[in-house]
Amino acid sequence: MQSIESVRWSPNQRAVRIIDQRKLPNEYVERDLTSLDEVCDAIRTLAVRGAPAIGICGAMGLCVAVVAHAAAGRDAFIARARDTARRIASTRPTAVNLSWALDRVVNRAEATPRNSAAVLIAMRDEATRILEEDRAMCLRIGEAGVELLKNGARVLTHCNAGALATGGLGTALAPVYVAAERGQEVSVLATETRPLLQGSRLTAWELTRAGIPVTVITDSAAASRMRAGEVDLCIVGADRVVANGDVANKVGTYALAVLARHHGIPFYVAMPTSTIDPSLASGDEIIIEQRDSKEVSTLGERRITADGVVVGNAAFDVTPAELITAFITDKGVIHPPFDFKSK
Amino acid sequence: MQSIESVRWSPNQRAVRIIDQRKLPNEYVERDLTSLDEVCDAIRTLAVRGAPAIGICGAMGLCVAVVAHAAAGRDAFIARARDTARRIASTRPTAVNLSWALDRVVNRAEATPRNSAAVLIAMRDEATRILEEDRAMCLRIGEAGVELLKNGARVLTHCNAGALATGGLGTALAPVYVAAERGQEVSVLATETRPLLQGSRLTAWELTRAGIPVTVITDSAAASRMRAGEVDLCIVGADRVVANGDVANKVGTYALAVLARHHGIPFYVAMPTSTIDPSLASGDEIIIEQRDSKEVSTLGERRITADGVVVGNAAFDVTPAELITAFITDKGVIHPPFDFKSK
Repeated sequence: MQSIESVRWSPNQRAVRIIDQRKLPNEYVERDLTSLDEVCDAIRTLAVRGAPAIGICGAMGLCVAVVAHAAAGRDAFIARARDTARRIASTRPTAVNLSWALDRVVNRAEATPRNSAAVLIAMRDEATRILEEDRAMCLRIGEAGVELLKNGARVLTHCNAGALATGGLGTALAPVYVAAERGQEVSVLATETRPLLQGSRLTAWELTRAGIPVTVITDSAAASRMRAGEVDLCIVGADRVVANGDVANKVGTYALAVLARHHGIPFYVAMPTSTIDPSLASGDEIIIEQRDSKEVSTLGERRITADGVVVGNAAFDVTPAELITAFITDKGVIHPPFDFKSK
Repeated sequence: MQSIESVRWSPNQRAVRIIDQRKLPNEYVERDLTSLDEVCDAIRTLAVRGAPAIGICGAMGLCVAVVAHAAAGRDAFIARARDTARRIASTRPTAVNLSWALDRVVNRAEATPRNSAAVLIAMRDEATRILEEDRAMCLRIGEAGVELLKNGARVLTHCNAGALATGGLGTALAPVYVAAERGQEVSVLATETRPLLQGSRLTAWELTRAGIPVTVITDSAAASRMRAGEVDLCIVGADRVVANGDVANKVGTYALAVLARHHGIPFYVAMPTSTIDPSLASGDEIIIEQRDSKEVSTLGERRITADGVVVGNAAFDVTPAELITAFITDKGVIHPPFDFKSK
């Protein structure tokens, strides 16, 4: 079923090959990232995006970025890797998968004896495992979540938590893909997701490519669709899930969760367990990335706000656990009360 | 205080002079509408917009459009006016002010004895009265609403229900302007209002011009601002208020009303009583204008959805009366239970 590979190795493992998501849906462009700057730039500018995908890209990108230093001694090489990982992690502070994946690769390096060449091989192996595990986790998320979809289910989703956002079938969209594969009727209502329009540009593109009916609406039209009885359930992804079950995800997720509760519609969060950050007790502790106000104040080259107008652009919001019906994970559907103090 | 005149007569009353709101905030352009086609086109393409403003523009535009027929006999002239009014009314089905204003001018024509020239003078007088009454109503709305604003009030509004949307100070923004005029501290959080961005383009422009602090956010960021305690009250306009107090307004209004209720924030609807349509019992009967899907699927010339993606673009939604704290009108603040069976 899977035909989109958002992040993978180039054939010689000297580059991270990504689909440049900034160009979609108008152009399908693959790019090879071959340096630390290219990796950081791709993550920062959302050429590659989605919590699981940036984890994979970060892990592979770390290997790519340190290749040039593999002639150094083991200790110097590992110190370089650790420093490089910190620089990659700083590109997106909210998604936990990025630092989680980087930590895995660095830890693997430290646990690998012998010379730098051997350490590099182990690091690449770890990054490859992260990709393969993510692919498998997506499939398990899909298989767990499909049980929640009756035939004909109309799913509302926000942003893009699909194949483009992961190494596999996606998180929020995985149950939809599995349902379609099994011959169930399923359709998706995709919020466009301002300011960067991941819903209209990406979710609609990948679902249409897979032959799954999708309708794009503005973010603020979701409420009246719910009121009209046109939404059976909501499924969104997550950038970070903390110990008490609070969720950081694309700004607007919280609004949809409140609206779903008001209309008696189940609200599910789908994610691999790598998205869980047990080190934070509640969502209040999550650092919310503030992105460039130009994402809101301009359309292409055109200014849409007058001079002097202040523009807020928090990229994420926090949805409290009490608004979440259940989590759909690679370890099955997790119902409340939520307790993620250990993964 | 008022410095923006969104709709007025040209000096010889042969044209309706409007601020072309499609060009804001980048260019301030006034245009003279001199024919039926120009009037309909300006209303349809939102060069002039806002329920009260399109009422005024429609009334004046009707006079402009029939000038060429003033040599006809009285009956033929009035029949032409009636037909022209119907054509103007059809440009925007949701706002009641448009048909209300057109009806007033046609009724005045019918009630005026003597020849076509005398009828035309009466029609122009009626259109002028509608403008002047609207200006006075806005001021009364502002004076009624300012009592709801404590010093330092942070007002969330949606779309543009300001001076640009009316003949005067606006509806939702009138209390803000009156508060500022009285020296009270007041600030506004303006949702950008997809798809046509009246919040970022227009509300932010006119408030900045008036020296009132304004911050623009995406529509879906309103929820987390409410949760963070950054909103003291919401004030929105209305395109139609029906007998039971249900309100049709810009899509997204309903979402904000649900969110305000969830957070215990008062939600006010400000409008002149001309916005009341006692002929409809509930919001279910309101015709919701479906606008061109290109408003959502393109940014300027750029496509943002893939081929084959279905796009919904309902321009309005209905907020049920039970979510409305009170109406702020030219007849004072109206608290529930609401009963608008007669104006």
